[in-house]
Parts: sequence; C-alpha cells; structure tokens
Amino acid sequence: MPQGKYGPHLPDQTYVPHAYPEHLFDTGEVSLNYATAGSAEQPALVLLPGQTESWWGYEPAMGRLEAHFQIYAVDLRGQGRSSRTPGRYTLDNIGEDVVRLIAFRIRRPVVVSGLSSGGVIAAWLSAYAPPGLVRGAHYEDPPLLQSEVAPERGQSIREGAAGGMFALFNKYLGDQWTIGDEEGLAKAMQERIEAMPPQIARAFAQFLPPPPDPKGIALRRQMVREYDPEWARAFLTGTVGASCDHARMLAAVKCPVLFTHHFRWRDEKTGMFVGAISDLQLARVRELITGAGQPFLYKSFPEMGHVMHGQDPALFARTLLEWTATLPSESETRTRGVFAASS
Amino acid sequence: MPQGKYGPHLPDQTYVPHAYPEHLFDTGEVSLNYATAGSAEQPALVLLPGQTESWWGYEPAMGRLEAHFQIYAVDLRGQGRSSRTPGRYTLDNIGEDVVRLIAFRIRRPVVVSGLSSGGVIAAWLSAYAPPGLVRGAHYEDPPLLQSEVAPERGQSIREGAAGGMFALFNKYLGDQWTIGDEEGLAKAMQERIEAMPPQIARAFAQFLPPPPDPKGIALRRQMVREYDPEWARAFLTGTVGASCDHARMLAAVKCPVLFTHHFRWRDEKTGMFVGAISDLQLARVRELITGAGQPFLYKSFPEMGHVMHGQDPALFARTLLEWTATLPSESETRTRGVFAASS
Amino acid sequence: MPQGKYGPHLPDQTYVPHAYPEHLFDTGEVSLNYATAGSAEQPALVLLPGQTESWWGYEPAMGRLEAHFQIYAVDLRGQGRSSRTPGRYTLDNIGEDVVRLIAFRIRRPVVVSGLSSGGVIAAWLSAYAPPGLVRGAHYEDPPLLQSEVAPERGQSIREGAAGGMFALFNKYLGDQWTIGDEEGLAKAMQERIEAMPPQIARAFAQFLPPPPDPKGIALRRQMVREYDPEWARAFLTGTVGASCDHARMLAAVKCPVLFTHHFRWRDEKTGMFVGAISDLQLARVRELITGAGQPFLYKSFPEMGHVMHGQDPALFARTLLEWTATLPSESETRTRGVFAASS
Amino acid sequence: MPQGKYGPHLPDQTYVPHAYPEHLFDTGEVSLNYATAGSAEQPALVLLPGQTESWWGYEPAMGRLEAHFQIYAVDLRGQGRSSRTPGRYTLDNIGEDVVRLIAFRIRRPVVVSGLSSGGVIAAWLSAYAPPGLVRGAHYEDPPLLQSEVAPERGQSIREGAAGGMFALFNKYLGDQWTIGDEEGLAKAMQERIEAMPPQIARAFAQFLPPPPDPKGIALRRQMVREYDPEWARAFLTGTVGASCDHARMLAAVKCPVLFTHHFRWRDEKTGMFVGAISDLQLARVRELITGAGQPFLYKSFPEMGHVMHGQDPALFARTLLEWTATLPSESETRTRGVFAASS
Repeated sequence: MPQGKYGPHLPDQTYVPHAYPEHLFDTGEVSLNYATAGSAEQPALVLLPGQTESWWGYEPAMGRLEAHFQIYAVDLRGQGRSSRTPGRYTLDNIGEDVVRLIAFRIRRPVVVSGLSSGGVIAAWLSAYAPPGLVRGAHYEDPPLLQSEVAPERGQSIREGAAGGMFALFNKYLGDQWTIGDEEGLAKAMQERIEAMPPQIARAFAQFLPPPPDPKGIALRRQMVREYDPEWARAFLTGTVGASCDHARMLAAVKCPVLFTHHFRWRDEKTGMFVGAISDLQLARVRELITGAGQPFLYKSFPEMGHVMHGQDPALFARTLLEWTATLPSESETRTRGVFAASS
Repeated sequence: MPQGKYGPHLPDQTYVPHAYPEHLFDTGEVSLNYATAGSAEQPALVLLPGQTESWWGYEPAMGRLEAHFQIYAVDLRGQGRSSRTPGRYTLDNIGEDVVRLIAFRIRRPVVVSGLSSGGVIAAWLSAYAPPGLVRGAHYEDPPLLQSEVAPERGQSIREGAAGGMFALFNKYLGDQWTIGDEEGLAKAMQERIEAMPPQIARAFAQFLPPPPDPKGIALRRQMVREYDPEWARAFLTGTVGASCDHARMLAAVKCPVLFTHHFRWRDEKTGMFVGAISDLQLARVRELITGAGQPFLYKSFPEMGHVMHGQDPALFARTLLEWTATLPSESETRTRGVFAASS
Repeated sequence: MPQGKYGPHLPDQTYVPHAYPEHLFDTGEVSLNYATAGSAEQPALVLLPGQTESWWGYEPAMGRLEAHFQIYAVDLRGQGRSSRTPGRYTLDNIGEDVVRLIAFRIRRPVVVSGLSSGGVIAAWLSAYAPPGLVRGAHYEDPPLLQSEVAPERGQSIREGAAGGMFALFNKYLGDQWTIGDEEGLAKAMQERIEAMPPQIARAFAQFLPPPPDPKGIALRRQMVREYDPEWARAFLTGTVGASCDHARMLAAVKCPVLFTHHFRWRDEKTGMFVGAISDLQLARVRELITGAGQPFLYKSFPEMGHVMHGQDPALFARTLLEWTATLPSESETRTRGVFAASS
Repeated sequence: MPQGKYGPHLPDQTYVPHAYPEHLFDTGEVSLNYATAGSAEQPALVLLPGQTESWWGYEPAMGRLEAHFQIYAVDLRGQGRSSRTPGRYTLDNIGEDVVRLIAFRIRRPVVVSGLSSGGVIAAWLSAYAPPGLVRGAHYEDPPLLQSEVAPERGQSIREGAAGGMFALFNKYLGDQWTIGDEEGLAKAMQERIEAMPPQIARAFAQFLPPPPDPKGIALRRQMVREYDPEWARAFLTGTVGASCDHARMLAAVKCPVLFTHHFRWRDEKTGMFVGAISDLQLARVRELITGAGQPFLYKSFPEMGHVMHGQDPALFARTLLEWTATLPSESETRTRGVFAASS
C-alpha cells in the first residue's frame, strides 16, 4: 500500500514536478490541493479535472489562459494531493469543497470549468452554490444523466463505455489503492479493449485516444496513481449521486452555462453508445437549464475526444475566452450574493 | 384497511364470481390460488398474469384454449387470492412458487405463458426451473431489461411509462393496501395523464387502452384491489430483481421461447418511449437466448395493446397454439428432467 | 394536499403567531427560515430543533437565554417554513445549510445546540464545518450511532423506539405531506402504543411525555404539519446518513462538546431499549471525541425526557450557560479560521 | 485467476482427496456437489457447512454418524465444487437449491443440520421448504439476526467479529477469486488480530481457534480457496438477506428445531461481542419459533468454539442423534407433504 505525506493512502509518486505552484486549503474536513497561475487583476477561473485526472491535466491549457485569468486548478477530494475521504465521495460533498475554496480562499466570484465528472461538479456549482459565487459554468463534455445509475432519460453508467472501466479500476486498485495491482488492471483493460467489436473499439479510440508515446503512458499511469479508485465504485453503485438527482439539479441552475459536447457515437445495430452524453440527453439538459431561465450556449465538437483541454488546448482556451466575454461581470455577480456584504 | 379471509390484507371483494373453479396450493411459504379448465388428457398450460391483473384476466382467452390444454391460471404471490408476503417479492421467490406448483401439484411438464411482469416470470422459469419442468415459454410483451432499474441495455423502469404509474399505486394504496386511498389514486392518475404531451397520451392510450364501459372500469378497479401495491414499490426500487439480473437470466434460458411484441413507440423528438420493451432491447434479448442455443420465435404485433390475451383473445390463442405444436413433446421433456425418475 | 406561500407543500397553518421575529436566508439551494432574539453584543447561539419539531419548540428556552446570547433558532430544510427538498435530505446537505447561514448571514463564530436529529447536525458541524465557525457544540440527547441503520456499535434505528414511529409518519403523511392522512396516523400511533408491553409503555411515556392539555396537543400536531415526513423515510432507509458514517464523523470533531444524556432504559428481559442513545454507545462517542483531542463534557439527566429545552427550559439554559463560559472566546475562534482574513 | 473444470473460477486445487464419494446434481440453475455416506435404510441427513467451509469440514463427524444416517454433505452454491453464481447469492436462492436436492434427488423427508451461515439456511428450510420435506432442523451456532445488516434485535454483522474478516476476504480475494491475493489477505488478517485488545483476542481465539498444525493450516487455506468470496460481500452489504428478514422467517418455522449455542462473550466495558449470536438474540429466536408453535430444543455449549462438528465431532454426533430420536418419523412427515402423493 503506497504511502505519502499528504495522507496515509496518497503515493509519494505524486511528487512529480509541475510547472505551477501548488497550495493546500483546509476546508474543515479535507485538505484541498490546487495550483495557481495568472494575476489577481484578471477574472478568477476555477478548473476541475475529470475522473482519473489531476489538476495538472490542465497544464497545457493553463499556458494559454494565464494571461487572461487568475487560475485555480483544483485537485478534488480523492484526486491528486487532496485528501482521501472513504465513504464520503458524493457530488454534494465534492461540490461543497469547491464552494468553501471560493468563499474562503479565492474570495470573489469565479468562472468555473470542469471536465467529465468535474463537469458534473461544475453543474452542481451552477445549481447549488451560494448566490454570487459563480459568474458562469462551463461543462466540458459532462456525463450528465449518463453517469447516473438510473437516469431520468437515456443510457446509464452501466451502458456507457466508462462504467466497465470504472469497475476494473476499483477492483484491481481497491479503495484508496489498498490493492494496487497495476499489472492486473493493465491486463484486464487490455482484455476488455480486445473484446470490443471493431466498430466500438474504433469509436472508443476516438473518444479516449491512447497516449501517443511512452512519456504519455507514464503520465497517464501517474494520474491514475493519484486517484482514489473509490470514486469509481461510488459512480458505479450510484452512491456518488444518491441524494443528487441530475434532472432536479439542472432545473435549479442559476447562472449562464457553456456546454461543449465532444465525440459521441451510437452503433445503430446494437444501440451501444460511446461518448459522455447522447444528443437525446443533451436535449433534456438544455430543456431543464433554459427552463430555469438561464442562458445556455451549446457548442458541438464531434471530432474532439473527451478531454479537449488536453487534446486541443488552444481550442479549449479560445472557446472558454469567447464565452467568458459574454458573462455578467464579477462586480455584477458580487452585488447579488454573499460577497456583497463584505465588499 | 380491507380485510378478507385469505389473509389480513386481502379484500373480501375478491369474491366476485368467476367462470372457472379456483383452488389453493400450499407451497410451504404461501397459499397460491389458481383456476383450472380443460382436460388432463391435454397438455398442461400455466398462465401468469401481469402486474395489477389477476388470473381471471385470462377468462376470455381460456374459453378459446380449454379444448386444447389443461389450464392452470395462477394468482402469483401478491395477486388475487394468493398470499401477501411483505418484504419478499422477488423474481426468484415468485418464480419458485410456480416451480413448486408445477413440481408438486401439476406434476408434469408444462407450457408457460406470462404477460408483462408475468412474462418476466415466464423468462425466469425458462432459465432457472429444474430440468424437465418447462416444455416452452411464451413471453407476452415482457418488460425484459426495461423493468430493471439499471438495465444492461436501453431504457429503465424510470424512463418507461409504467414506472410513474407504479409510484402512484404504491403511494396511494400502500403496501398491502394499508393506505387504500382509491380516490387519491384515481385523481393522481388522471392528473398524470392530463399532463402528458398529446403524442405521448395518444401512444399511451394505444398501449394501455382505457376500459370501454362502466363494467370494464369496475373490473379494472377490482383487479387493482386484488393486487398488493408492494409489487409496485419492489419494481420501482429494484428490490424485485436485485439478485436476478435479466441479461444473466436470459443467457441461461434452457427451453424454446415465443416472444410476442406489442405496441411500442418512441417519440423521436424527446426520446420518450411508450411500450413494454424497445426493439433495441428485444434485439439484445434475442441475442442472449439464441446465444444460449434455444429456439426463439419472435412475433411482432405493433397494432396490439399490452394485453393481447384480453384485447384479442382469439389471436392470443391462435398464436400460442401454433407455436405449441412446434415444441418438444411432454414425454420428451419428461425424460430429460426431474419427472423422469418418478414416472 | 396543503399549500402555503413558502412552497408548494408547506401548509398555511404554519402561520401561527410566534413571540420572535422570523427571517428567510437564501443558501443558494434552499430558503432557510430562522427566528432571532437577543443582542448582537452577546455571543451568537444557533439552535437546531429535533425531528418533528420546528424552531419555536425553543420558545420557552429562548426567554431564558436571550439576555446572554444573540439567538438564531433555525428551521432546518424540511422543518417549519424552510424549503422542502425531495430526495436531498442528508446530514451533509442539512449541515451545510447551517454552515452557509453562519458564514454568510451570522458572520461570526457561534455556539451551536441541537436536539436529537438536530443534535446529530450539531455533531456534524463540530466535525465538518469550516475552521473558525463553531466555538463549541452542545449535543442534546442525540441519537448518535443509534439513528444509523447499521451502526458501528449498539442498537440501530430499527431497534429504537423512534424507528417504528417514523415509519408511521411517512406512511400516513407521505413525502411532503402528499398523503396527509392525519387521522390514519393518529389511529396507527395509538394502536402502536397500546400494543407495547406495560414496562415499555411506561418508559416510553417518560422518554416522550404526551402533551399535558389540548393546547399542547394542538401545538404538537401543528409541529408535525410543519415537518416533511420524507425526513422519516430518509432516516429509516438510511439515505440521510449514507455518506456520513457517525463514527468517522465523531473521530473528526474539532471543537469542545457538551453532551447531555436524558432518560434511557433497557428492558433486561427483552433487551428492548427506550431512549436516544445507550450508555454503551455514549461510551463509544466519548472515546471517539476525546481521541480527536477535544474537550468532552458529559452531563447525565436520567430523569429528563428527550426534549429538555421544552420540559425544563431553566435547566437547559443553566446547563448551556455554564458550559459556554468554559469555551474559547469568539475572537480566539475567529483567529483560527475563515473569519480571520475578513475581520 | 485460478481455473478448474467445474467452472471458470473454481480452483483445480479442490481436487484434494476425500474419504467419501462426491456427486453432482443439476438444480436447473447450478451444479450442486455433495458427498454421501451411510445406508438408504437409515434416515436421511443433510449437512450444510458454514461460510469458508466445504462439505468435507464434516468428515470427522460423518464417521460417527454414518451408521445412523444416510448422509448428504452439501457444497452450497459458491462453496467447494458447486457452481459460482455471481450476483445471485441470496438466502432464498441458496435455500432453494437444497429444496431441489431433497425433492428431486434424495426424494424423501430429511433431517437437516447446518453450521453458521449453513445454520441460517437450515432455518430457511425449516420456514420456507415445501411441506413434508424437513423432519427437523438443527441450527449449529447460527448467526440469526446477527448476520443481518440491520437486525430487529441486537448487534449486526458490522458489530460482530466476523464482519471485519469478511471484508478482508472479499477485498483481497475478489468475487470468484478474481484478485486472489492470498498473501495480502494473510497479512491483513494478521494485522487485524494483532490490533485487537487482548481480552477480545483471547475470546476470538476461543470462538475460532487457530489451526493446530501445518496440516490444519493447509486444510483451512484449501477451504478458503474453494469459497467464493462474493459470499462475504453479500453478507456485508446485506444483499444475501435483502428479501429475507430473519425475524419474519423465524415466525414461519414449521418443524422442530434444535439450537446449539456455542462460545459467546461480551466485553462489559466496550460492549464488544464475540460469538455467533448473543443470549438476547437467542431469546428472540426462541420466542419467534415457539410462537410459531414448534418444539424448540436449546442446548448451550459455552466452552465450545464455533465449529462443534469439527472441534468435538463426538459431542456433535451424540447431540444430533439424541434429538433426532424425538422427531416425527419419516413416514409421518411424508404423509403431510409433497412426497405423499408420489409414495
């Protein structure tokens, strides 16, 4: 069982060097790790990585964004160097950590952008954060509805491509890496991919392209080492969202939303779906958010894999910047919420 | 709280007169009620009603079948005059009751035909009954996969039209009818139907046509009175199939199957589905059963509502009879199973 | 279904007049109702009522405390005039509402006192609130461990006296009072009490004394009308604490604790327990909190029923005041936490 | 991942030689392995091993019983050479396998004796088997109530000594031994034992004495290899009994019961309990079974460890034989049940 100084279950390997300084914030329950870039004179931007990613998955994009934002790239609980919290990985708890970071450390309204599971947390913040904390929320290819065990509409995590992989992560690595059988995992993943029908395998490779070289493989593996596989179990069994129905959450959204939708593909013959969220589910998401009276900007990038901020950081930065220009200003947001009284 | 002599929660109203004699069988756990028709010289046929139906939903069909079969039309546990078993409504327990009826009362191989939830039990018997009990199984418009909370493929009970109705049944009637608010139920059902978009309402009326006259309404209401609404809760929460994954079950089928598929319709705009099982899910069912090496006869009746045996008893009888003629004989089945040694 | 202006499911009857002014706070997700008393020059005190209580259960005690504290008596989500949040009643969400109230409305460190379920929330705040928010936490007869479905130690909610009553609340009133069968409830409660063995009934009457007169009965009934019975379901099924194990929470306590322990009694013959928490479970609670390095003041009041603040407001006030005198000062607490930077 | 000819996940190591012949029975769902001894002229006896045991744990006792019984020592599903059934380990399914073995292979009424989890199955058979199958049921130190996640009375599996061990079995071995980390398991078990307070460790060693010599250690390890650790998960999470409440089951018992109660001990200081079932829970079991009108013979053996049939086979045999002499005869039982018609 790997050990590290940030917690009993956190591997020392996390000390690979990064290009940006890291900091710890005590939420009261967890120690939250985040990296910073950019100047305090720029608007604040919070970046929330996807499952099996750490904050430094954003490094390529941060270079393109740091001139325009004061960036906070966060390791959510169970990611990177942030605390492990067995039995307590829920959307509500994960989201609340970010609320506290914004309220008590950043101390001003922010733009938030999250990928995949991090995009679900971005959605959570847009719905349930205290008033005045969030200027706008970018959901980057978020598995809304689809990452639920029994969604109101469309395929569930069990049907999606990711579900099966999550099962392997948790089985071979164990909650808090207590099994840590990396080779067993690699073998099982390989078997799984080889068992895919060719058309599925092709689609899967577009959705989640394999790392291009040994260095990429090593970084990918490093990220998984920094990840608490209890996340995978929490998603598969549904405990992560047991008290946070996505449709109810989306109907409560209170700020403008940018939704970027990447590669998705459905095999007409078998109905199998590869992607984070189907067009049908997207339509329901749009209906709920516009029904809540919020601006909803939808951008489809069907050629792009799941992680746009890694695969095409320039496109990611450009898309985010253009949309940010349309948001209510920081001071407008401030006047409507909890930062008002203290300003 | 209505009371009746067959159990604390069973209404006396169940004593509406029926055209066929009824009998009770003690399984060891429950008292199972069933009606009989036809001669012992004919092959044995077991009929399993759908949810909120009782055995006498088959009366119209029995008239057309009794010349050809010795019929056993069964009230499953929680239906009609059979026992209520709080906390114990599972596919495994419901199916096992029928196994015991066949093994210890009918005492010879049978053909089984079940509608809807009863069709799922027919599938269970085709997979998990002792060898030699079942010659063939007719699944009449069965919500395979679709009645699961998190199916391997396609929409779940939450998305299906029935899920919402089940929630109302359980809420206003209560487990074992302990609330029994029939008027609250009727009002809530009406509100639900009125809230449907017109195209959904139209499809719904094709799938589950409203009773044609006051007598039909009274019979429908009578059936609901004979039904334990804990079934509804068990389906909605998934306890009914928690240890009986449909895909795994279908991969274990051991006898020929007739699958009749009735009205189903998908609203392309919203993706909403009305029907018991989609074509996509049907394809997966076919794949699993043929993969298990069993003959699979598929008949599509898209013009027919959910309950063919009620809506068009002649078509039901003809379809069943034609397929039965293709099945292994009773004696062939007998030699391969548990009846062999005692014959 | 009763309706009220604070939400679709909130009865107008809540507008019974009270002696203290009420206010609403927008947490971002819910509208939180609270009453105030006392002067801003006194230390801040947050009061959290028990299950089926509203803030005004504290009225008798507030008269004795208002000279010494600035009091915030809170309706938690699902209580009184605060919002109903179907599907979202969890200790984490309920606790977080109070965090936001303290951080963004009260805006200074507080002493918190909660009864029963509210005492569990007091424990949650002592463990998981941001640093510097809570000077000390009074748990008034809290069902720690005992209100869990599968506690680490000792009897569970299923064994406790309250569990059975909760089941009746939810069944006859329905989530958000959508059934609202008050008479059915009263009858079922009466039957339940009459079925108790005499020694249990006697103990139960000491633990939860029946109201002394018609006015008391009316107030009791009024409180239940202001309560969302989904709370009961959430406790019974365990969803309320599914991601918040009590033992883990108590091991994370970060401030001084006052634990008042009221009537409890175990029938040696049957092992049946009447009370909020057994001595055995109390011992485990003490072990966990002192193991976390926090001062733990234990006061046993075996003659006192469950609701000391209602039954003996003077004793409640005296006990709370004496202990408060021993706590770190507001300014000491402030320097160690999130209020530090903004002061 | 070990492979064997009886199934993909069954280790070849199970082919250690045994003193009695083994047979396979096809239940329709699973292949059930059992060993036989004794003559058909003697009464039939079915033996059901405990969790992590296989049928041959009864070998020492069988030598003392074979002159008096025709013995069927069974590997339940997930034990020994019987099938593995992922997702389908429930008391109902496990019990039904034995029903089918008795009804279709043994074909006459039996006496049943089961240890620990096997004793719970013996209780299941005494309650839910078809009439006329079981003459009497011996529960050998059965964790009734205690092996439930939320029992009606007394400590749960989480509090019991076994719960923690089960968690380790499942984690390090994996469902169907798919992890198979025997060394990780041994190390974790050792750490767990070393962390016990001395008084608990002493009690634990009385309850489950360590094997006396290397051969005993090898046999113990061999049994664990023959065990599907998904059993452990099913007990820990409660899926094994989700639809089979123990109290409800015991209130349905329909034949005479012998209850042997072995070592149990409660640490008065901490309340920690070592044993299969407490005296308090035993009292409730007795109350329920006698309330069902059945003879209940209770024998306390406080000096005996959990597995009497292994630790003192002579005492086990003597106790079982004496009680068997008091049971209704095979022919009496036969006349009252499903074997009547075929005799």
